[in-house]
Amino acid sequence: MSTTEQHPHNNQPLQPLKFALAQSHFRVGDIAANAEKMRTLATQARDNGADVIIFPELALLGYPPEDLLLRPSLAERIKSALTALSDISDIVMIVGYPHVDYHGTFNSAAILHNGQQKGFYHKQNLPNYGVFDERRYFDKGRNQVLFDYQGVTIGLLICEDLWIEEPIAALKEQGADLVVTINASPFETDKQNSRYALLRERARAQQLPIIYVNCVGGQDDLVFDGGSMVVQSDGRIAHEAPRFLEHLIYASYDSDQKSFDTQARSPLSLSAEAEIYQALVVGLRDYVNHSGFEGVIVGLSGGIDSALTLCIAVDALGADKVYAVMMPYEYTSQISLEDAQAQARRLNVSYTVCPIHDAVNGMRHTLAPLFNDAKPDTTEENIQARARGMILMALSNKFGHLVITTGNKSEMAVGYATLYGDMAGGFDVLKDVYKTQVYALANYRNRLEETDVIPERVITRPPSAELRPDQKDADSLPDYDTLDAILTHYIDEDLGFDEIVSQGFAPAIVRQTLRLVDSSEYKRRQSAIGTKVSHKAFGRERRYPLVNGWRLE
Amino acid sequence: MSTTEQHPHNNQPLQPLKFALAQSHFRVGDIAANAEKMRTLATQARDNGADVIIFPELALLGYPPEDLLLRPSLAERIKSALTALSDISDIVMIVGYPHVDYHGTFNSAAILHNGQQKGFYHKQNLPNYGVFDERRYFDKGRNQVLFDYQGVTIGLLICEDLWIEEPIAALKEQGADLVVTINASPFETDKQNSRYALLRERARAQQLPIIYVNCVGGQDDLVFDGGSMVVQSDGRIAHEAPRFLEHLIYASYDSDQKSFDTQARSPLSLSAEAEIYQALVVGLRDYVNHSGFEGVIVGLSGGIDSALTLCIAVDALGADKVYAVMMPYEYTSQISLEDAQAQARRLNVSYTVCPIHDAVNGMRHTLAPLFNDAKPDTTEENIQARARGMILMALSNKFGHLVITTGNKSEMAVGYATLYGDMAGGFDVLKDVYKTQVYALANYRNRLEETDVIPERVITRPPSAELRPDQKDADSLPDYDTLDAILTHYIDEDLGFDEIVSQGFAPAIVRQTLRLVDSSEYKRRQSAIGTKVSHKAFGRERRYPLVNGWRLE
Repeated sequence: MSTTEQHPHNNQPLQPLKFALAQSHFRVGDIAANAEKMRTLATQARDNGADVIIFPELALLGYPPEDLLLRPSLAERIKSALTALSDISDIVMIVGYPHVDYHGTFNSAAILHNGQQKGFYHKQNLPNYGVFDERRYFDKGRNQVLFDYQGVTIGLLICEDLWIEEPIAALKEQGADLVVTINASPFETDKQNSRYALLRERARAQQLPIIYVNCVGGQDDLVFDGGSMVVQSDGRIAHEAPRFLEHLIYASYDSDQKSFDTQARSPLSLSAEAEIYQALVVGLRDYVNHSGFEGVIVGLSGGIDSALTLCIAVDALGADKVYAVMMPYEYTSQISLEDAQAQARRLNVSYTVCPIHDAVNGMRHTLAPLFNDAKPDTTEENIQARARGMILMALSNKFGHLVITTGNKSEMAVGYATLYGDMAGGFDVLKDVYKTQVYALANYRNRLEETDVIPERVITRPPSAELRPDQKDADSLPDYDTLDAILTHYIDEDLGFDEIVSQGFAPAIVRQTLRLVDSSEYKRRQSAIGTKVSHKAFGRERRYPLVNGWRLE
Repeated sequence: MSTTEQHPHNNQPLQPLKFALAQSHFRVGDIAANAEKMRTLATQARDNGADVIIFPELALLGYPPEDLLLRPSLAERIKSALTALSDISDIVMIVGYPHVDYHGTFNSAAILHNGQQKGFYHKQNLPNYGVFDERRYFDKGRNQVLFDYQGVTIGLLICEDLWIEEPIAALKEQGADLVVTINASPFETDKQNSRYALLRERARAQQLPIIYVNCVGGQDDLVFDGGSMVVQSDGRIAHEAPRFLEHLIYASYDSDQKSFDTQARSPLSLSAEAEIYQALVVGLRDYVNHSGFEGVIVGLSGGIDSALTLCIAVDALGADKVYAVMMPYEYTSQISLEDAQAQARRLNVSYTVCPIHDAVNGMRHTLAPLFNDAKPDTTEENIQARARGMILMALSNKFGHLVITTGNKSEMAVGYATLYGDMAGGFDVLKDVYKTQVYALANYRNRLEETDVIPERVITRPPSAELRPDQKDADSLPDYDTLDAILTHYIDEDLGFDEIVSQGFAPAIVRQTLRLVDSSEYKRRQSAIGTKVSHKAFGRERRYPLVNGWRLE
């Protein structure tokens, strides 16, 4: 093997070159465990006849490592891990890792073979938008890197490098037979289709086959959805890994034919609802498991948000790890009680009813002398919500389970939620799912089984927070079809007031909605994280000041 | 006047060129109001004989604007504001603004004169570390910009540009007589001294006088501390504005002497405690006022953190806008009650005692059937803390005041605080102040007046959360001198376990402390913001993953 930035050698391979694509989960920060996982996968791939195994972007450290990249012992730890990998023989490993030397810190791919580091490539295009902050940490690579193995010249790219035209064109010019790109590409709706389109376009334009390896699994608010693939030089997909699952796939390159073999069976293609649902399941599962919790507690209200959250929790963790608590008060309707119980029974989870009257009355008693005769307002509603939050947190403290919250993106957007009340908890499963999508996902989940896991009535009844008599969401908010359409324009598409009104929405409703979004930033800032599924999720992807004088019009 | 990137004209000025340095607060997002403020200041400066007025970095939009920079109507709004400034005559305005054109978005300085934009400079060095994310938004400028006015050639720089050697050297080479640098430089301990050192070094090295203009005021967790100044080419300070105050200072440049006049009286130099105290006052004041709150509520415990927070709130807002609430329970000592009352009386704020027994008992009653006979543990302590948080939030909801919290940096670091309990609130005044600094600031504040505003006993008694009988912080944590020293090494200096131990700390204590810091990230993520005063504040300056497998050793 030789590493070169110039032209390849021209040996004739005796047989096709077999690549293993290690679509795996690597845990942020745990370098030693990640190296150990690489060892296991590399050994397995070699035993299955692979010549080369490819790990995702920054796999040795996990993605996104955030300020762990600034820790002074990083270089030392990475060096130890790479050394630990050096006794793996007879397979080339392409390892994503942070490279630290006196030139700077780089997002890199190492080429390891039989105990030697044969070369490395530094990522040239560092995304610093959306959820990405790579220029906070990394210096830019300046050179293309190609290496020869068994007569095949392989060019290396990392993630964003492929979204730009130049790097792959330069690899082609320098004689690449095929390109390997390693990625840490987070899920968002329809992401796999944009990957298909990109890979097809690049492969065809350069007449180069591309091996695309993505990681998988949840890290805080991001879920990596895999979907690794191999694309022929004419843009056809030769191999594709399933989404959201750890998977080792193999692809053999015939250098005479200049093409890859084709897999026998393609993975299942996922519907829009299915991919979001799976992302939510993986995001919750990995957060809970990697945080070391034995299970989760969820407050059931009888409404659709907590119903769907419960389903996702059961699908993520198993019914034995999910604890449902119904906390009725004066305004809780009989059908809410029935439906909450029905959901819990149907999903076979622990179910407790804990009336909150004593807690609310105690708080009211305490506050009475301070409130004098002040009229009831949302304060009293918030007290109910906060009593519930306090109960769930007390159960969490006592028994060690994680409280998961049920606020959807529509509510988080307009602040239709109580801070330290229904917002109390460590993970908000539906945080990036609009209410209209909640309905779609509930129907999707119901279709998966013979009998509904979410009672039909939960889906069809008008949504209510049940914090005062006969309260309906529609008393305070526009209908959800309208609300979500306006929110999508404002948040996901960044349109302004005038542009949204010009789409035919009533100016007063648009004004009210946008004001609510702007003035709820303080709530969102203290909210639990939740899995990103949209093109613009609250959290690290949308960074707004709390004190904000921006005027709507 | 002519703008040139080459050499200056050589006119002889008849009289010195008079500059006004507009050290002012510009509110993030409110472009129209900021333009209006510029108009007022420019008119005032012109009437005082100024030839040139200089506004801080990005003053037209405020700093840091975060994702407001991505809003599609930004370019249009900036254009309108610049147009609105075009009828100001007879004074040159140097205006910090975001420049949007088909080349990209730039962090820029416009040179406006008599209704015309005579030129603009684009910042070349974009900080993307610490609290800064400028590469998320801005493209890099590529050129030096100089302009001539009344025979003086003025070179422009923006903030980070001066921290690098090349840009000012290039301005010198291209014939600058003096350099104007506009800044949005946030406060941290000892920052003004590092500015002095930098300005002296650059001025002397290039033999160029420098006008340094900084903004002032709080924006979320940042406080801009002003300290604008004029430095002669030999490094001496000719003019300096006071810290933390809006101020228009004037400096006249004599082009024959190639130097500035010198101000009659230098501003007061601030001690380490004084500058931190003032930063905390300004940070709280601007957050409260710009969020539109009429006042603040603070829970007094009788301890030092809430005592100091109360002082800062009174100094920031006035006694009539501060509402103190003491919420005793079984474990509250008599001296806590006495001392809380004494503080409130001494500071002349509204004081309410609200015993929490009913609230806690109601909650316990509610939980009893669920807890069965589980032993008491921190759950019961958290219930007390959360009952207090709920009461403060209820008062906030009912009467419209902002709840401010009192958690210090030591507590936030190790998670010695209850989420949704004592952490409930919108602004954490001492968030970036270690406990040992809390003592120093309390003593500082006491020295400012004839009689102590914080009773001596509050300062000398051993700290306790009073959540169980005879509880002391020292039961759970190392003594604060040790704890803060370890925390400073780990958080502020980014040292690792081995390095900290090598400084002479017991490995077991270091291990315990670092583990607590790492495992409390989920609490900090949902915590209120607070003013940055250290070199590394929690929040946007220290971005750690929640799920984090980094091993200490």
